[in-house]
Amino acid sequence: MLNGADAAFLDGLRGQGIEVVAPEPRYLEEPRGRWPGRAAAVARPRDTAEVAAVLRAASAARVGIVPYGGGTGLVGGQVMGAGEGALILSLERMNAVRAIDPQSLVIEAGATLEAVHEAAASVGRRFPLTIGSQGTAQIGGCLSTNAGGVNVIRYGTARALCLGLEAVLADGTVWNGLTRLRKDNTGYDLRDLLIGAEGTLGIVTAAALRLFEPPAVEGSAFFTVPSPAAAVELLSLAQGRFAGCVSMFELISGQGLAFLRQTGPEVRFPFAEDPAWMVLIELGLPAGMDVEEAFAGLYEAAGDLVTDAVVAQSAAQMAEFWFLRETIPVANRRIGAISSHDISVPVAEIPRFIDEAGRMLHAMGDMRINCFGHVGDGNLHYNVFPAAGRRREAYDMAAVKHAVHDLVVSGFNGSVSAEHGIGRLKVGDLERYADRAKMAMMRALKAALDPEGILNPGAVLA
Amino acid sequence: MLNGADAAFLDGLRGQGIEVVAPEPRYLEEPRGRWPGRAAAVARPRDTAEVAAVLRAASAARVGIVPYGGGTGLVGGQVMGAGEGALILSLERMNAVRAIDPQSLVIEAGATLEAVHEAAASVGRRFPLTIGSQGTAQIGGCLSTNAGGVNVIRYGTARALCLGLEAVLADGTVWNGLTRLRKDNTGYDLRDLLIGAEGTLGIVTAAALRLFEPPAVEGSAFFTVPSPAAAVELLSLAQGRFAGCVSMFELISGQGLAFLRQTGPEVRFPFAEDPAWMVLIELGLPAGMDVEEAFAGLYEAAGDLVTDAVVAQSAAQMAEFWFLRETIPVANRRIGAISSHDISVPVAEIPRFIDEAGRMLHAMGDMRINCFGHVGDGNLHYNVFPAAGRRREAYDMAAVKHAVHDLVVSGFNGSVSAEHGIGRLKVGDLERYADRAKMAMMRALKAALDPEGILNPGAVLA
Repeated sequence: MLNGADAAFLDGLRGQGIEVVAPEPRYLEEPRGRWPGRAAAVARPRDTAEVAAVLRAASAARVGIVPYGGGTGLVGGQVMGAGEGALILSLERMNAVRAIDPQSLVIEAGATLEAVHEAAASVGRRFPLTIGSQGTAQIGGCLSTNAGGVNVIRYGTARALCLGLEAVLADGTVWNGLTRLRKDNTGYDLRDLLIGAEGTLGIVTAAALRLFEPPAVEGSAFFTVPSPAAAVELLSLAQGRFAGCVSMFELISGQGLAFLRQTGPEVRFPFAEDPAWMVLIELGLPAGMDVEEAFAGLYEAAGDLVTDAVVAQSAAQMAEFWFLRETIPVANRRIGAISSHDISVPVAEIPRFIDEAGRMLHAMGDMRINCFGHVGDGNLHYNVFPAAGRRREAYDMAAVKHAVHDLVVSGFNGSVSAEHGIGRLKVGDLERYADRAKMAMMRALKAALDPEGILNPGAVLA
Repeated sequence: MLNGADAAFLDGLRGQGIEVVAPEPRYLEEPRGRWPGRAAAVARPRDTAEVAAVLRAASAARVGIVPYGGGTGLVGGQVMGAGEGALILSLERMNAVRAIDPQSLVIEAGATLEAVHEAAASVGRRFPLTIGSQGTAQIGGCLSTNAGGVNVIRYGTARALCLGLEAVLADGTVWNGLTRLRKDNTGYDLRDLLIGAEGTLGIVTAAALRLFEPPAVEGSAFFTVPSPAAAVELLSLAQGRFAGCVSMFELISGQGLAFLRQTGPEVRFPFAEDPAWMVLIELGLPAGMDVEEAFAGLYEAAGDLVTDAVVAQSAAQMAEFWFLRETIPVANRRIGAISSHDISVPVAEIPRFIDEAGRMLHAMGDMRINCFGHVGDGNLHYNVFPAAGRRREAYDMAAVKHAVHDLVVSGFNGSVSAEHGIGRLKVGDLERYADRAKMAMMRALKAALDPEGILNPGAVLA
């Protein structure tokens, strides 16, 4: 059992010069409003040595630590509802750029993702991780949750974009793994182990990130497609033609467009009549290519895979296209889902999954499905809504969730959390679906690196 | 202490139907001839269940297991010289393709890398991992050592090319992590932990690999450059112009060319007069581009960064260019190095490293340096040779090695094993140079997953 962070404990931290404050409400909330967090206090260290001091003290006193980044996570990894006495550890004051060169950026964990983008831009480079919450999300949290987003198809998840880490372990030891190397085969991959561990194996305090030259030519287009199967074939065609220069390939459904029209966010619709399915494609091409010609060539080669297309004519229109895609979750929230899923299946299986899941759900009741997302990653945001005019409470929400997850896992060897992580929301799902050997290994690793269980208690592992 | 695999132990395996044979010499050798291996026998299981049975038995009897792939590793990870009684575990009979689709290939660990390439080609795709020993190296070994090679600049190391693993743990438990998902944030990254662990944390029995559409247009060229600094600038220019479509960017030195001429492998030299430095660039471009025009545009944009260039006029000439690069290590072996280094530094630091290392070594004595390799990865094969007419035994070989490694680590925060791994050769280097917290974490992970220490004893960790 863990102990509460009592007054003596907190005074001990203050005595070492560490800022410790009462938890404002923002530290105790999460975007979905499912968990009201509880905590004794918030520690806001100003450097890695102070983080180490906090963890040394917490380890000695067996006090639970809840690491807090920007607070934008969707699975409750940042709020602990149980217990009274945990200490929130916020790295918001640690946001300095430590070093930058054209290939890499060393930055502290508390910097927002937007600040990372700005630092990259200051040397004419790009950090390609792009998510809706980037103005608030912090890079430490992005790494700890192995964030994904729309550019994974080309650049990979957060894990692929990180060269090195500095982290503080449960006992307060500082691991300096802050190398800026592309290749380093000296021992186990501790970096990738901490990335995605959601603060349960160590606290990321700084990272060395890969920077990329922006593509010479960029553009985007909507292509309407007759089916998800056509979208997957079109993707394959595009990858072959453009030699991997597809930066984004997002599926959008007619249901999603209908929700946008119904809930009324100010979106410009690309086609007079909404298609059943369309894709948003972004290309980032070599110098000398013409993006409009590139899209025209793809359209022609695609034959029956495509029924209509519109190419952005300016950077402003590219932003407009992107805004439509980005606003779909807003419309979803206004409609109110029975169940929302962040799932992945093998890319080739997307059409069969959409088909089978749809048939299954329609057999369960009258529901609407808004399925959209990252086709190139096999990652769908598969959201289920009540029929028009009905309330979601009229449905067995848990049954819908389990049916979709069961199908994903049993029918497709897929994942019930493609990019959001486990947090506290999906601890039960992990238990239910994970391979037994995987769970045993995870528990063994947790016990090896955090024997007292002080790091983000209750997240990932029960 | 581990026990030997005695007759009773081996009979127990045979009693379960597992093929157990005496160790032929090929299982006890490694390419550098440094370690004569010793072993009681070789087990050649035919499926994962038999691998599990071997490990269950070895775990119960505390018998050391030496996993053996193609035997091409350069750091002695595949041969154990100490002790008499270890059991070699070869997965050569497990080489089946279990499943293939245009995005992924599920194949058993004993398949050669060449067989993986052929399977990918059979569905019109490519598996981009390319190393000199691919006809012999097995995919299980490539993953266990996180193999690199010449296409890392574009596609990443083996780790980036693997979607999922099946592995058998020390106690015989089978982990089925053989998913074909691009994104899966359900828990700790066990895949990347086993990849690169050199068989010390588990035995990889099968893998799901990413396949790629071959680029529509491909070509290669030699560009001569006045200095390594110009090579690094040229790389950055090429990455920006070609939107990441640079598939290979290899530095070659005049010393390397001189060795090729001297030792006489049948290589065609691209320039009448050998340059001090040149780079081999391969591009894989979108449809519609002309590779010759692309190289011409790069040449023009490069200005003073480039002094001459020759573009391959055919696939046969591309192969010829590649053969020159590939033959450099052959020439090196014929000359006989004082010390060979597989090091990495941040890409931007390559010029300073080459400069400082050269000055340091020339201050130590009259030596020749052949430095070549993967500029885009910051990975140099930095090899030191005697002056013409002198024998390598005339030099303090250990002092040279230590001086180079010390400079890499202290001066550049670099790696003393960029792509070859630790094996048994570099256990001392790891001890000497690794961060203390890293070593402690690695030992904790090893103890957690292989408490008896039966998996590849003496490799990676002493």
